[in-house]
Amino acid sequence: MGINSNRVEHCSDHHACHDEHETAVTISSTDVNVMPSLEVHRVCLPPHKTTLEKLVHKLSEAFFPDDPLHKFKNQTWFNKLVLGLQFFFPIFQWAPNYNFRLLRSDFISGLTIASLAIPQGISYAKLANLPPIIGLYSSFVPPLIYSVLGSSRHLAVGPVSIASLVMGTMLNEAVSYTDEPTLYLQLAFTATFFAGIFQASLGLLRLGLIIDFLSKATLVGFMAGAAVIVSLQQLKGLLGIVHFTSKMQIVPVLASVVQHKHEWSWQTIVLGVSFLILLLTTRNISLRKPKLFWISAACPLASVILSTILVVLFKSKLGGVQTIGHLTKGLNPPSSNMLQFRGPFLAIAIKTGIVTGILSLTEGIAVGRTFAALKNYQVDGNKEMMAIGFMNMAGSCSSCYVTTGSFSRSAVNYNAGAQTVVSNVIMAAAVLVTLLFLMPLFYYTPSVILGAIIITAVIGLIDYQAAYKLWKVDKLDFLACLCSFLGVLFISVPLGLAIAVGVSVFKILLHVTRPNTTVLGNIPGTQIYQNINRYREALRVPSFLILAVEAPFYFVNATYLQERILRWVREEEERIQANNESTLKCIILDMTAVTAIDTSGIDTICEVRKALENRSLKLVLANPVGSVMEKLHQSNILDSFGLDGLYLTVGEAVADISSSWKP
Amino acid sequence: MGINSNRVEHCSDHHACHDEHETAVTISSTDVNVMPSLEVHRVCLPPHKTTLEKLVHKLSEAFFPDDPLHKFKNQTWFNKLVLGLQFFFPIFQWAPNYNFRLLRSDFISGLTIASLAIPQGISYAKLANLPPIIGLYSSFVPPLIYSVLGSSRHLAVGPVSIASLVMGTMLNEAVSYTDEPTLYLQLAFTATFFAGIFQASLGLLRLGLIIDFLSKATLVGFMAGAAVIVSLQQLKGLLGIVHFTSKMQIVPVLASVVQHKHEWSWQTIVLGVSFLILLLTTRNISLRKPKLFWISAACPLASVILSTILVVLFKSKLGGVQTIGHLTKGLNPPSSNMLQFRGPFLAIAIKTGIVTGILSLTEGIAVGRTFAALKNYQVDGNKEMMAIGFMNMAGSCSSCYVTTGSFSRSAVNYNAGAQTVVSNVIMAAAVLVTLLFLMPLFYYTPSVILGAIIITAVIGLIDYQAAYKLWKVDKLDFLACLCSFLGVLFISVPLGLAIAVGVSVFKILLHVTRPNTTVLGNIPGTQIYQNINRYREALRVPSFLILAVEAPFYFVNATYLQERILRWVREEEERIQANNESTLKCIILDMTAVTAIDTSGIDTICEVRKALENRSLKLVLANPVGSVMEKLHQSNILDSFGLDGLYLTVGEAVADISSSWKP
Repeated sequence: MGINSNRVEHCSDHHACHDEHETAVTISSTDVNVMPSLEVHRVCLPPHKTTLEKLVHKLSEAFFPDDPLHKFKNQTWFNKLVLGLQFFFPIFQWAPNYNFRLLRSDFISGLTIASLAIPQGISYAKLANLPPIIGLYSSFVPPLIYSVLGSSRHLAVGPVSIASLVMGTMLNEAVSYTDEPTLYLQLAFTATFFAGIFQASLGLLRLGLIIDFLSKATLVGFMAGAAVIVSLQQLKGLLGIVHFTSKMQIVPVLASVVQHKHEWSWQTIVLGVSFLILLLTTRNISLRKPKLFWISAACPLASVILSTILVVLFKSKLGGVQTIGHLTKGLNPPSSNMLQFRGPFLAIAIKTGIVTGILSLTEGIAVGRTFAALKNYQVDGNKEMMAIGFMNMAGSCSSCYVTTGSFSRSAVNYNAGAQTVVSNVIMAAAVLVTLLFLMPLFYYTPSVILGAIIITAVIGLIDYQAAYKLWKVDKLDFLACLCSFLGVLFISVPLGLAIAVGVSVFKILLHVTRPNTTVLGNIPGTQIYQNINRYREALRVPSFLILAVEAPFYFVNATYLQERILRWVREEEERIQANNESTLKCIILDMTAVTAIDTSGIDTICEVRKALENRSLKLVLANPVGSVMEKLHQSNILDSFGLDGLYLTVGEAVADISSSWKP
Repeated sequence: MGINSNRVEHCSDHHACHDEHETAVTISSTDVNVMPSLEVHRVCLPPHKTTLEKLVHKLSEAFFPDDPLHKFKNQTWFNKLVLGLQFFFPIFQWAPNYNFRLLRSDFISGLTIASLAIPQGISYAKLANLPPIIGLYSSFVPPLIYSVLGSSRHLAVGPVSIASLVMGTMLNEAVSYTDEPTLYLQLAFTATFFAGIFQASLGLLRLGLIIDFLSKATLVGFMAGAAVIVSLQQLKGLLGIVHFTSKMQIVPVLASVVQHKHEWSWQTIVLGVSFLILLLTTRNISLRKPKLFWISAACPLASVILSTILVVLFKSKLGGVQTIGHLTKGLNPPSSNMLQFRGPFLAIAIKTGIVTGILSLTEGIAVGRTFAALKNYQVDGNKEMMAIGFMNMAGSCSSCYVTTGSFSRSAVNYNAGAQTVVSNVIMAAAVLVTLLFLMPLFYYTPSVILGAIIITAVIGLIDYQAAYKLWKVDKLDFLACLCSFLGVLFISVPLGLAIAVGVSVFKILLHVTRPNTTVLGNIPGTQIYQNINRYREALRVPSFLILAVEAPFYFVNATYLQERILRWVREEEERIQANNESTLKCIILDMTAVTAIDTSGIDTICEVRKALENRSLKLVLANPVGSVMEKLHQSNILDSFGLDGLYLTVGEAVADISSSWKP
């Protein structure tokens, strides 16, 4: 046991401890596995920083984790200018290398998503209680703006189901479109403007972390709930009901369906169900064979054309079937004069804008990241937020409502071989042609076909496999998912979302409030100390109780940890007495996983130490991390711990303390 | 480098890995410091548990961390009965050993706190806008109940300033005592009843963790704010103003003081300020010399007597001074018929009950724990909650309002040598004598003296030293403290408290949302890997990048950690290029401090791994804790990591991987 006991004191002049930490010192990896020296290493404070330096560091970690300006370092002024342009307008990154081969791919994929975007645009606008033409307007201007500002190559931009549904629900609570169409339109554009402002400011302020609070579990439940709600709403069109409830929850909708049984129209039902079966079948084919993506991509447009022809041919027999009716030809009219920044409905417009803004951001960024990961390029979340935000601000001034990257259309875009955002430009051009010349063709398109298209689009949002996986891996995640699903279904869309976020946050707090504490033992022949419940080979060290705390030491768990540690000690003493082993003398607290501490935590450590001292037990700390060490130092409790209360590793603590007992 | 490379596979049959973990196997401490074996240890799964077992374990950890029934194990039936009685009625613990020596100490301390409790009781009742006699009633019944149920030996029970203030503010917003005295009294008793119900149920349901959410930082700010508010309210009495604002915030109160300048009465001011100076001086003397505690303890009663005599003697000259007036003689009348469980004010009564209930619990338990720690005995938080709860429920039926353990009186009790709760019984007896015989003596007691007593009592709540320590140790704790202080001062008492709790919770979330990541290096000659920024002796291992993540891997930080890890890799590659070192080949993620993971975190690890693989970099994990390992296993991502993606320690990972490169 030749322990070199020139125990180095805790360095009060911690500057000496570390001054040039950026020196690139490395050792050969062959040096690593040598016999461990038995000397005791001192625990260092982190390099000294002023409060301001700490604040700057914290802020830059919080808001610039990806160091977005790293490319600008060590560049000439001209390069910086070029990089700056590329930074703000990603079009400058790919435009110089754009060629005919890329254009051909983008052209094909652009036309493919246009054939999907036109019927979906009309359908989703109806979901938001807006006139169908607004959905087409929204598929024209925003994609053009995104193609200049966006950094994803595969995002297909336009209206999406979730944001449309939420906007429809929230605005409908305040104003009815049928009663006051102008006011409703004004509110929709104003909400879109606020959504854009909100999204762009999140990006500018680099507050992307707000959308991180919508966990995957929450979203799985939310999307499934929204899909059910949306599908139920389509019962109105599919059954041909004229007087339908304006509520969204499952109970009143089903009640309304039964109540208005006498309004059901068999022609509508037959037409709707046949096309729904057709659409779902083609969707399934494409899902099983991704190469046949074009079948499901072309089917909605084909259905629209086919059903329109059917209605025209059998006009006499299909008289009861509702059709879209007259749509004005022409480009997006300006709508900036319709934005309302005062009046009694401002609050509801802002609220709707923020909720739809968050939801559409979440979808857009998640979709962008998914396809970027598949093709191995990076999408900058904060820049995407700005792009989507500006796109919506511009949209609100040109008769568009909230848009973002759509999951279903982006998948088609990706499968159709899109290479750059030019496919969005091609799509916008196709929409332009439609707007200018093809509008009258929709006159006889039956509304029921739009319902079938919507159901086919949203049914993919019900991801029961993901829900099953959540259940398997993490029961609390599944609970969050379930809360969000049931909340959306039975209460309301924004409240369901809020409840789910609450459950997710509660889960984090619960983890901190009741952290794990484990007893460690030594794996013989090594310096490894591991949980004795998990590693059978780990053995208790006589006279020592080694405890690892697996959470930050905060006010929420200070009382708990104090009680728990004292209980571990009591139980260990009882065990020792029962087994007639050597008495307990020292408790080592392994602080490796205690990643932070606050004033309550520091007080707790002091109190535990005092309580143990009263029972002639010694408490030492092993391996406190930098920030914890700093706080222990600042609060002066290290003075009471003295020179021998802090060790770098559990192994050194055991060796040093047990050797001190020998003489 | 003789590495024993019979790398053990990840155990899929993890039962074999550990089956009898309760076997008391220990090794001699001399075995610990031997040369480390160079074999690679496999990472184990924790012992298998069903979902139900896990739930039971989690719940028992959450609600019974102190294992309250451990004393009952292995006892005879008779012993269990005795222990049960002692468990529910702590009086059975100390009563058998009670003797004359203890009684003498308790008698002296009981009389001492009575001399403080009588003037404070009258004063605090005024703070709650209640008639002074209610304060005396509240110092009689609750202490008697507590003496049977309570487990603290030094708590002096009665009305306290903070709860009185909060009750006064909250009820006054709904009903004015001057306009509707009966309704106000009904509300006060009903609120007290709900406070009691709430406190007792928290104790019964073992939900003590709710009061843990009031951190010390929050309380320091809250108490200081409340003390300022309370002191400002006393300006009414000290200046002799008749028409005073009913608001509590600092701005309207100061405005009211200036507005009613013409009502200021110089006799009142002279009398008030002289006695205030006297009281503050004696308080300071006792603070400096704790042995002279009786000076400050006796001074309030002495001031009441002296000022009453002064008013009686100089009746003609001190005519403008307001006095307490007539108080009814007699014991607490029953008030259970005044509890109102319906009507428009039920909501405000419940709300007031919950807020005052939480606040009085926090004070009572904190005070109990403080003195228990000084005398080295344990106070069971959940049992204390039940005791305080039952005391308030009984109080609400006997004309008492919310009571708890008072910090100032408990300190006097402790210093006066109290040994058991019998001192509370003695105090109650003294109050009984006062109620039965001495009430007429208070007729000429000037109200101004009560104001001076209140100011002296609450001034000690402004703990600027604690606030300075918070600033020094933890800036965010200080921010929570400041928010709570300013919130109480400028907004309202419950809202100020809510804001402060919000800030404290936000701090926890912030820590999880933006966790620390550090680069580790090897301390030559050891198996220790430490932060290279903190330990100068820690050296980078060539071709390796070793990263430690200091937080659970959750949805809130999944995106951040992904970006941050990829940035570390990029920066390391840039550094290697600049220094012309050997290329990076492997990234080791030290998971020791990753205390939990959710589905988003698992997805992130997969994505990081894929991203690194695309750049021909290997990612391995070192030392995942039990719960993380379990989730990694359940989500099947371990299959993709393969046999060589998991190591027990960083050292073994480095040794094994670098040896595999050799051939």
